[in-house]
Amino acid sequence: MTPEEFREAGHRLIDWIADYRASLESKPVMSTLEPGEVKAMFPTSPPLHAQGFDQVFRDLDEKIVPGLSLWQHPQFFGYFPANAPLESVLGDYLSTGLGVLGLAWQSSPALTELEEVVLDWLRQMVGLSSEWSGVIQDTASTGSLVALLCARERTTNYGLSRGGLQAETKPLIVYGSAQAHSSVDKAALLAGFGRDNVRYVETDEDFAIKPESLERAIQTDLELGLQPCTIIATTGTTATTAFDPIRPMAAIATRYGVWLHVDAAMAGSAMILPEMRHLWAGVEGADSIVINPHKWLGAAFDCSTYYVRDPEHLVRVMSTNPSFLQTDADGRVKNYRDWGIPLGRRFRALKLWTLILSQGVEGLQTRLRRDLENARWLEAQVRAAPGWKVLAPVALQTVCVRHEPPGLEGESLDSYTQGWAARVNRSGDAYLTPATLEGRWMVRVSVGAVDTEHRHVEALWRVMQREAANQRTL
Amino acid sequence: MTPEEFREAGHRLIDWIADYRASLESKPVMSTLEPGEVKAMFPTSPPLHAQGFDQVFRDLDEKIVPGLSLWQHPQFFGYFPANAPLESVLGDYLSTGLGVLGLAWQSSPALTELEEVVLDWLRQMVGLSSEWSGVIQDTASTGSLVALLCARERTTNYGLSRGGLQAETKPLIVYGSAQAHSSVDKAALLAGFGRDNVRYVETDEDFAIKPESLERAIQTDLELGLQPCTIIATTGTTATTAFDPIRPMAAIATRYGVWLHVDAAMAGSAMILPEMRHLWAGVEGADSIVINPHKWLGAAFDCSTYYVRDPEHLVRVMSTNPSFLQTDADGRVKNYRDWGIPLGRRFRALKLWTLILSQGVEGLQTRLRRDLENARWLEAQVRAAPGWKVLAPVALQTVCVRHEPPGLEGESLDSYTQGWAARVNRSGDAYLTPATLEGRWMVRVSVGAVDTEHRHVEALWRVMQREAANQRTL
Repeated sequence: MTPEEFREAGHRLIDWIADYRASLESKPVMSTLEPGEVKAMFPTSPPLHAQGFDQVFRDLDEKIVPGLSLWQHPQFFGYFPANAPLESVLGDYLSTGLGVLGLAWQSSPALTELEEVVLDWLRQMVGLSSEWSGVIQDTASTGSLVALLCARERTTNYGLSRGGLQAETKPLIVYGSAQAHSSVDKAALLAGFGRDNVRYVETDEDFAIKPESLERAIQTDLELGLQPCTIIATTGTTATTAFDPIRPMAAIATRYGVWLHVDAAMAGSAMILPEMRHLWAGVEGADSIVINPHKWLGAAFDCSTYYVRDPEHLVRVMSTNPSFLQTDADGRVKNYRDWGIPLGRRFRALKLWTLILSQGVEGLQTRLRRDLENARWLEAQVRAAPGWKVLAPVALQTVCVRHEPPGLEGESLDSYTQGWAARVNRSGDAYLTPATLEGRWMVRVSVGAVDTEHRHVEALWRVMQREAANQRTL
Repeated sequence: MTPEEFREAGHRLIDWIADYRASLESKPVMSTLEPGEVKAMFPTSPPLHAQGFDQVFRDLDEKIVPGLSLWQHPQFFGYFPANAPLESVLGDYLSTGLGVLGLAWQSSPALTELEEVVLDWLRQMVGLSSEWSGVIQDTASTGSLVALLCARERTTNYGLSRGGLQAETKPLIVYGSAQAHSSVDKAALLAGFGRDNVRYVETDEDFAIKPESLERAIQTDLELGLQPCTIIATTGTTATTAFDPIRPMAAIATRYGVWLHVDAAMAGSAMILPEMRHLWAGVEGADSIVINPHKWLGAAFDCSTYYVRDPEHLVRVMSTNPSFLQTDADGRVKNYRDWGIPLGRRFRALKLWTLILSQGVEGLQTRLRRDLENARWLEAQVRAAPGWKVLAPVALQTVCVRHEPPGLEGESLDSYTQGWAARVNRSGDAYLTPATLEGRWMVRVSVGAVDTEHRHVEALWRVMQREAANQRTL
């Protein structure tokens, strides 16, 4: 495709995306296709001859769009807000269009240096001290894995350069809570700790870790001759956006020489609001933090940031230095390949840069405060409605609800809850994610899509009541 | 940014990228900025108030483009071809513009199912049997890590669900060669094997693993009571594009019950040419394969594919199943989150799909054959020129060269080689990556950027001779 052909197809694509975004509100939020329906519409073998780009647009309309659940829809309240506002989309378009890679600093200096600039902007925006250095990763799953690897290697004094984890004689232990994200569990298993060595510390009535239980767990393990290695604190858990108490956990981490990783994937974005920072008070005592600007903040996916206090340690764990990557600038520059797992890196900083530049810190703050207010409004409605319950503190933008009609409990209540949530999703009027809390199903309402205004939350609340009533009268 | 504002800025961006791509040939390939120069041009604090998108275009021209080394330039012969042809760029634009995520199949069915379709297309294109199932990862670094984790867990019979790697009593051993990619080494260390347990098997005069040395190494370890776990075979090494002999290595892997991972990150693309497939003969005997369509083939970065014969094993190692990800479609669909490390996934299949659709298999084959021919032409020139040497077989599109003027050897030769290569890069006329081979510096010429025609390789050869002469007369 020549630049001139790109110009033509590209303009058409821009118009297509503009129309698509403008039309979202009139579309059902969740795709209702059955498994295999999309696949069946495509040829089973690749085309031998080139097709024109017209075919792409035809397939897009006929085969792909019907198979999408619409994360950018104003009635999307599922999972978490994975916002891709159009300012950030354009930043990502620049990245792909430029087509440059970060392997070494020299392989495109601006790719590395704009990442340094923007990660330092974000550090200031969330109120972290200048002791922290950041890097962009793909997702928090990867960030948590990197944190656990760094913890493992600090505890073993770089066992990777000798016999590896398999040569350690004292089992290393990881501490989190059952409310921590599933990726933390996964990272602990992938990093080689093993399920037997992951501790789920007791949580309080707000689903936050009890520091005294954490300390007791560590002491028990020490008495057993085991080696405490990592504590995971979550700033905004997935189920209820609970906040583990960082300050006392950091004190425990320091006391026992254990790595403290803060998973602020979801709620890190909220820290651009000074009034929210009390929720991670003590965070300066951590060793690593994950914040996902690709969630609520609005950097187009994927853009997860990983901050550490000791970048030299990170580099020592992650670095490789083969001859083909050496340049005479080494030593004077950052080579971000040594700050994570992949060698090749996209110019991801662009999409975070265009977001911050075109919305400004104040613009971002205003949107997040709107969402917090909308969540509190919904909380108040739910609390005031007979039979409806709010199941966890609404500290952020997620409201955990259940409708408990008289006479329903246990598994009947579970199937009722899953029933009305599925009805909401199938109706196309809104998208919600059910989850379990203390062994019972409930429904998470995650407020915060870029286009979600107060009226959309009002509409959601009507839909929830409608579908609960419909499910009741089955 | 409203869809209408996006339309305006988006059209401008398309024109900007079209102009940028059209102008590449007139620009210096390598940025000559000094460390810190880009960074110094940006404010040290984030903007409080929103800036118009004009600012983005201004900064792009004034601050970012001067800091780019131009991977899409026809005179780019460094590292590897990280091709981002404009058809694939548009596929990625669709992905970011749609703004949907893969967490569960239900969270956007088309995202999962188009990935299934296109990965099966690619499987057919490279001549793999239908026994293989594929998934898109970010890079081969991650793919190799996943392979080593899968090998580790097969060998330990899912030790991760018990005491982890740290509970194993027999150290697990990884086998590769010193020619394997640095990411394999890194993956082995991150997966917990430890440097002491990585073996570098002897290679022959073509830099390919000697199967008899591999088998001897395994036998020695078994006699020592160690546990052979993984063999890494490379299909197209980074330094010289050497090809490890897969068939005898697969036989050894089977004989000793060891996992065989084939790193075809670079040369996997070449397997769309039936005449090249003898270079990985026996590949059906492997357990996992990495192929990077984001290299020579031309899917915009990042798009690395990982194929396995036993997807159930992969899922068992990688899966998590928290309640908030469960849907009633589970069991009838693929949930690709369980095929790799990250939970959240971009709609990456789009950029591979638009590439294959708009170039057709024949179009892709024609381009790759052009590049092979250009590499062979350069090889012939180098062989015919006095003092110039080709240092490794040119089986693919990479030519490893050294100019050895009379009287220069050892470190003097090294500094001469690095000197003229740096001159080429600084001249802006071409970009080359030096590397070491058998302890001495040489220069890799990696042919295969999309826009590199025969005349560009001719021009490169003139520049190489010119700068070698300039360096000589210092």
